[in-house]
Amino acid sequence: MTEKLLEIAEAALDAALPKEDERPAALSAAMRYAVGSGGKRIRPLVCLAAAIAAGGKAEDAACCAAAIEILHNYTLVHDDLPSMDNDVERRGKPTVWKKFGEADAILAADALQALAFATAARTERNAADAVRILAEAAFGVVKGQVEDIAAGKKDARYVYAHKTADLFVAAAKMGAAAAGGTRESVDALGRFALNLGLAFQYEDDLLDGDGLYAPDETARLAAKATADAIASLEGLPGDVSALKSLAARLLGRKT
Amino acid sequence: MTEKLLEIAEAALDAALPKEDERPAALSAAMRYAVGSGGKRIRPLVCLAAAIAAGGKAEDAACCAAAIEILHNYTLVHDDLPSMDNDVERRGKPTVWKKFGEADAILAADALQALAFATAARTERNAADAVRILAEAAFGVVKGQVEDIAAGKKDARYVYAHKTADLFVAAAKMGAAAAGGTRESVDALGRFALNLGLAFQYEDDLLDGDGLYAPDETARLAAKATADAIASLEGLPGDVSALKSLAARLLGRKT
Repeated sequence: MTEKLLEIAEAALDAALPKEDERPAALSAAMRYAVGSGGKRIRPLVCLAAAIAAGGKAEDAACCAAAIEILHNYTLVHDDLPSMDNDVERRGKPTVWKKFGEADAILAADALQALAFATAARTERNAADAVRILAEAAFGVVKGQVEDIAAGKKDARYVYAHKTADLFVAAAKMGAAAAGGTRESVDALGRFALNLGLAFQYEDDLLDGDGLYAPDETARLAAKATADAIASLEGLPGDVSALKSLAARLLGRKT
Repeated sequence: MTEKLLEIAEAALDAALPKEDERPAALSAAMRYAVGSGGKRIRPLVCLAAAIAAGGKAEDAACCAAAIEILHNYTLVHDDLPSMDNDVERRGKPTVWKKFGEADAILAADALQALAFATAARTERNAADAVRILAEAAFGVVKGQVEDIAAGKKDARYVYAHKTADLFVAAAKMGAAAAGGTRESVDALGRFALNLGLAFQYEDDLLDGDGLYAPDETARLAAKATADAIASLEGLPGDVSALKSLAARLLGRKT
C-alpha cells in the first residue's frame, strides 16, 4: 500500500515542479534540488491515506499531496539559511543556499511556496477549501518558527503544534476534503494528524537527543500522542489501515 | 472615485493582517510594518477598478485587492535583504530586515505570502480562480527577480513582464473574476494590466534614471504601453473611467 501511495506522490511532485530546463534554468534547478527525490514523503503519505480513510481514492488527493510536500520543502530551505539555522548539509547533501547561493535559495523557496498554492488550487474537488487549509498551515509554520528562534523561554507546545503539526493537519484535511469527505471526517482526520505530528516531533527529539522536554517525558508524550492519533480513526468511512501503519512506523523510527 | 477605492483597499488590508498583539507579536508587528499604510496602493486600485470595468462592484474584489498588495509587499521585503539588493531604507523608513533583523524579515515575508493566498481564497465568487491567478503571478515575480539578479546580459522584456507586470495582470484578472466577469472581460483586463505594468516600470526607470533601455527609448515605450493599455478597455461592460485615470496618472508621474 505505502509503495503505491509513494508512487502517486512522486509522480504528482514531478508533474508539479518546473522541468529542469524551464526558464530561468537556475531557478528550476534549485527548486527541483530543494524538493529532492527518494525522501520519506511522510506528509504526502498522510494526505493520500487520509483521502482513502475519508472514503475516497488516493488519486483524488494527488495535487494536495504534492502541494504539501512542496510547501514543507520551502520551509526547510529558509530554515537552513545563514541568518536562521545556518545549516550547510541536509539529507547528506549541501543545503540549497550552500549549493546555489543565498539569494537564489531565498527565491527558489519563495517560488516553491507559490507553486504549492498553484498545485493545491488544481485539485478537482473543493479546491478553495484545500487552499484555505494549506494557507492556514503555511502561516502557522512560520508562527512556530518565529517562536522557536525567539530569545528567552519557549512555549514548547506552541512551537511543536505550529512548526511541525500544522503541516500534518493540513495534509490530512486537504486529502480528506479533496476526496469529498464529510466535515466530520475532515475534522477527525485533522485530530489524527495533530497527534501524529506531535508524535513525529517527539520522536525527532529522541533521535537527535535534544528537544524542549526531558527524554523520559518526550518518550511518554510520543506514545500518548500516537495512541490519541489512532483513537481518532474510529468511525471513519474508509480504510484506515494505511494511516495506522504510518503511525506505528513513526513511533520508534530509527531515522 | 479613487478615494473611495483606496478606502476599500485599506479596510480590506487592515482586516486581513494580524492584529498588532496577535501571537507571536514580533511576527505580527513585522508583517504590519512591511505592508505599511498610506502607500499608493496601485495594484489594489487596479484590482478594484477592474471589478467595476468587468461589470461588477469594487466590494466584490476587496479580498483580492488586499491579497495582491500583501503579496507585492512580501516580494519587496525579500528584495531588500542583504543577500539581494541590500537596501536599508524604503519609503523613507528602515527596511524590514534593518528594523527587525534578517531572520524575522525573511519569516514575516513568508507569512505575508501565505496570508495573501488565505485572503484570496476568502473571495466569495470564483475563489479557486483568484488563487490560481495569484499563484501564477507569485511564481512569475520570482522568475523575473532571478533573471534580474543573474550575472550577464539580461532580457529586459522578460524581467519587466515578470518582475513588474505579472502582479498588475493578476490584480486586474482577480478583480474581474471576483466580480463575476466573463472570460473575455478577464482577458481584456489582463491585456490592459500587462501594458499598464510595463508603462509603470518604464516610468520607474525614467524617475530613477536607470533601467535596461536608453531614456529616449524608455519614454517612447512608456507612451506606447499606456496607449495600448487604454485601447484594451474598448468594449468592456462596466465603467472604465477609473482604470483610464489610473493609466493617465501613472504616465508622467513624479514619484
